[in-house]
Amino acid sequence: MLKMNTPAPELSIFAWINTQAPLTLAELKGRVVVIHAFQMLCPGCVSHGLPQASAIHAAFPPSELAVIGIHTVFEHHAVMNANALRAFVHEYKIAFPIGIDTPDAVNGIPITMQSYGMRGTPSLIVLDRLGMVRLHHFGRLDDLRLGALIGQLLVESAVPKEQKIEAIQELRSGENCNTESCQIT
Amino acid sequence: MLKMNTPAPELSIFAWINTQAPLTLAELKGRVVVIHAFQMLCPGCVSHGLPQASAIHAAFPPSELAVIGIHTVFEHHAVMNANALRAFVHEYKIAFPIGIDTPDAVNGIPITMQSYGMRGTPSLIVLDRLGMVRLHHFGRLDDLRLGALIGQLLVESAVPKEQKIEAIQELRSGENCNTESCQIT
Amino acid sequence: MLKMNTPAPELSIFAWINTQAPLTLAELKGRVVVIHAFQMLCPGCVSHGLPQASAIHAAFPPSELAVIGIHTVFEHHAVMNANALRAFVHEYKIAFPIGIDTPDAVNGIPITMQSYGMRGTPSLIVLDRLGMVRLHHFGRLDDLRLGALIGQLLVESAVPKEQKIEAIQELRSGENCNTESCQIT
Amino acid sequence: MLKMNTPAPELSIFAWINTQAPLTLAELKGRVVVIHAFQMLCPGCVSHGLPQASAIHAAFPPSELAVIGIHTVFEHHAVMNANALRAFVHEYKIAFPIGIDTPDAVNGIPITMQSYGMRGTPSLIVLDRLGMVRLHHFGRLDDLRLGALIGQLLVESAVPKEQKIEAIQELRSGENCNTESCQIT
Repeated sequence: MLKMNTPAPELSIFAWINTQAPLTLAELKGRVVVIHAFQMLCPGCVSHGLPQASAIHAAFPPSELAVIGIHTVFEHHAVMNANALRAFVHEYKIAFPIGIDTPDAVNGIPITMQSYGMRGTPSLIVLDRLGMVRLHHFGRLDDLRLGALIGQLLVESAVPKEQKIEAIQELRSGENCNTESCQIT
Repeated sequence: MLKMNTPAPELSIFAWINTQAPLTLAELKGRVVVIHAFQMLCPGCVSHGLPQASAIHAAFPPSELAVIGIHTVFEHHAVMNANALRAFVHEYKIAFPIGIDTPDAVNGIPITMQSYGMRGTPSLIVLDRLGMVRLHHFGRLDDLRLGALIGQLLVESAVPKEQKIEAIQELRSGENCNTESCQIT
Repeated sequence: MLKMNTPAPELSIFAWINTQAPLTLAELKGRVVVIHAFQMLCPGCVSHGLPQASAIHAAFPPSELAVIGIHTVFEHHAVMNANALRAFVHEYKIAFPIGIDTPDAVNGIPITMQSYGMRGTPSLIVLDRLGMVRLHHFGRLDDLRLGALIGQLLVESAVPKEQKIEAIQELRSGENCNTESCQIT
Repeated sequence: MLKMNTPAPELSIFAWINTQAPLTLAELKGRVVVIHAFQMLCPGCVSHGLPQASAIHAAFPPSELAVIGIHTVFEHHAVMNANALRAFVHEYKIAFPIGIDTPDAVNGIPITMQSYGMRGTPSLIVLDRLGMVRLHHFGRLDDLRLGALIGQLLVESAVPKEQKIEAIQELRSGENCNTESCQIT
């Protein structure tokens, strides 16, 4: 897994939904970035992770915070394709930009998922305004703790690096595709 | 829509999941039958209808009551195919038998959906032990009212036809693909 | 505890709320009766039992089914008095009749609670149209199973006694005042 | 109502529960303080406000953040007395300190409620580490927004006053004692 407080690697995205131009983390510097990695057939993503990401997208001004979904397909590749995802995004009325993680034909785990060392879906990655990884969480995270981290990062712009308070720790781990998450096995 | 208290037309099923042999309504006579018609990308089906069907499947003895899911795809046909449905059923751990409604190449609405006059998904059809339609509901129906109908039908076997109490009326209607349902337009 | 399928003892009520004249089970014969025994400071009663009783009261016609709440105070007697209950019923907008179980100065458990052998709150007692006890449940009972029993009893009027199907069994037990229930100790 | 970013007036507390010594805001300087004003018979307080306060109490270290409940009784005074509150706190297993707002015999609205200009219950007051009022909210506030404010305030200690970002605005208002809140009329 990525180390905390290190620069987030650039996303590797095959195609985008809900955005006219491709997004890069480089361009988003200056904003807090909340990345929600999901699969459209992951029950915990559908029931909790995506609604939470939509709530964040609605609660905070886009000039201060960007929400990005990444479709990180590591199982059932044939049926969770781009067209299926577009239908899913349409039916679930998801409004924030979603990138399709670039497939890796060799091992089945897509490129961004690999470079971030994600353990499965849902995964939540939060970057500060400097593009540093401040949260890397697998499974469900409650709104109160996630909100506290976001609030902390929103006011951090003027705070010098050495005063940075440690981000919220990884709080719990999941098992393979229960109601909350799907884990790489 | 089908008339209440008339015989339910036989299902037209392209392929079955979660059952070794194909099911027919003819064979299920003698049992109460709860049919949940859904689409895997219909949000109201995923959040409410399918969990309710699973709860019914768990609560009542299979010798007395059969739960059947029918995948009635009337939109996004290409991505809600049989393989996608199999992955969905696996990830959501659905245990009751599911039939794929036979596609109709001409108008896009599958055969069983047509013969029952369903308005969209989720739709709930309940048959009594004699195979008569006793509920035909589009959208969400609460557990209390649905449970009451099931309880009524479970004890009805010995009751002569002419004493049958009217089934619970159609309670509400839906609009096109909101959080609760997807309607044919 | 009362035996199933035996006549329910008459209620012993100190005072009534939400009804102009006192109610008796004798007068309610011919209707299904759902009795919800609660305490206003029992968390499981407030979060689950009373909303369920209100939903039953709203779902079924009063000519066929009567909902009665009974305030069975077995702890904190001084603060769960009649005036406190009236304020509670007002603030929670409870619409069905509520009887205050007659206190027993000797052992602290009120009279109706004793005669029914209730184990704590919430307790759910369901009587058929003949006034027989068909459910005696301590703790939480889901809407689906409770609805099924109600549906069964609603159509039972014309069914001779000997064909009566056994009521739903006692499904689970509780512990002393957790989030779901408060038990007599 | 109190102006934002002004010093919070000292609490006027008649008696304390869940704390050995009386608390003062003066002593709590240096910590973020979350004050939840409630009434034990206010449905929105019981279903949402108090569980949220308990979640905050569990999520953040007491050395950094203090949660205080204040019982601000402005109706049904006779039945929401100190003994009733103690039974309520016991049954609902509330763990954080609760102060009983000092009654005002003249107008029925207790002293702290008056001095803070609260509009009803639940009310949420949040103070920064300097003791300044940073949120004054009547009714329900979601965990995400409240968490964001808490996160902001937790890192604010080293930030000079003039850089303080405006607290989250008053987000919605309530009506008199619906499921969410009870308003002074």
